[in-house]
Amino acid sequence: MTAADLAWLDQVKFDEQGLVPGIAQDAESGKVVMFAYMNRESLLETVKTGNATYWSRSRNKLWRKGEESGHVQRIQELRLDCDGDVILMRIEQVGGIACHTGRERCFYNRLEQRDGVWRWVVTDPVLKDPESIYR
Amino acid sequence: MTAADLAWLDQVKFDEQGLVPGIAQDAESGKVVMFAYMNRESLLETVKTGNATYWSRSRNKLWRKGEESGHVQRIQELRLDCDGDVILMRIEQVGGIACHTGRERCFYNRLEQRDGVWRWVVTDPVLKDPESIYR
Repeated sequence: MTAADLAWLDQVKFDEQGLVPGIAQDAESGKVVMFAYMNRESLLETVKTGNATYWSRSRNKLWRKGEESGHVQRIQELRLDCDGDVILMRIEQVGGIACHTGRERCFYNRLEQRDGVWRWVVTDPVLKDPESIYR
Repeated sequence: MTAADLAWLDQVKFDEQGLVPGIAQDAESGKVVMFAYMNRESLLETVKTGNATYWSRSRNKLWRKGEESGHVQRIQELRLDCDGDVILMRIEQVGGIACHTGRERCFYNRLEQRDGVWRWVVTDPVLKDPESIYR
């Protein structure tokens, strides 16, 4: 890609820390499976490779999702919001597991009211033991 | 609600600025329609009223979505991610318009490659003139 070809990237408004929120949605099930931040480098790599790539704020490095686990997220569609500062990815989740806990998605806690009290209830099963995912 | 009833809220990990990302997904179409931040107060109000309530970082105040436009987001389901620091809401979008531009959703820009060059292409029509939404 030449500099001129990066006009699309220049239109993304990264925050003071150089980040934008990234939302990953399973293209088949429609489920929102994951949320993580992206910087300019990771967004460019996402488009170049076709694999969702994030910026790990805790490890302060490029996070090629699935690099270790094999649970790569293949980009089907990339969207930008009205303010140009949030990315939405429709992805194919290889292996059917997006979460590091071995679940289909990270959003496995549902708020439910029981006996008048609200609580977070785990609704999704662990599909694969994390120990066997990350060796 | 008593203090004891707020255990669910205490489990949410707000960042240094007291915020968590909030994702709104249309329960019917499955489309991700909006993204905004929430603080403790707005999340509590969301659960109490059943209407998505955000924290406006630009205006530094509670943002009762739809208060002016009538485009309220009725909560169908509330989810929390594995790290406890991102909220996913499945909502009923009253009026069918989530975006301040008068579109169904904020994510109306799609990345498309034409003649080898990537660009953001507007895919969604304006359903209602913003001027008539916000008077």
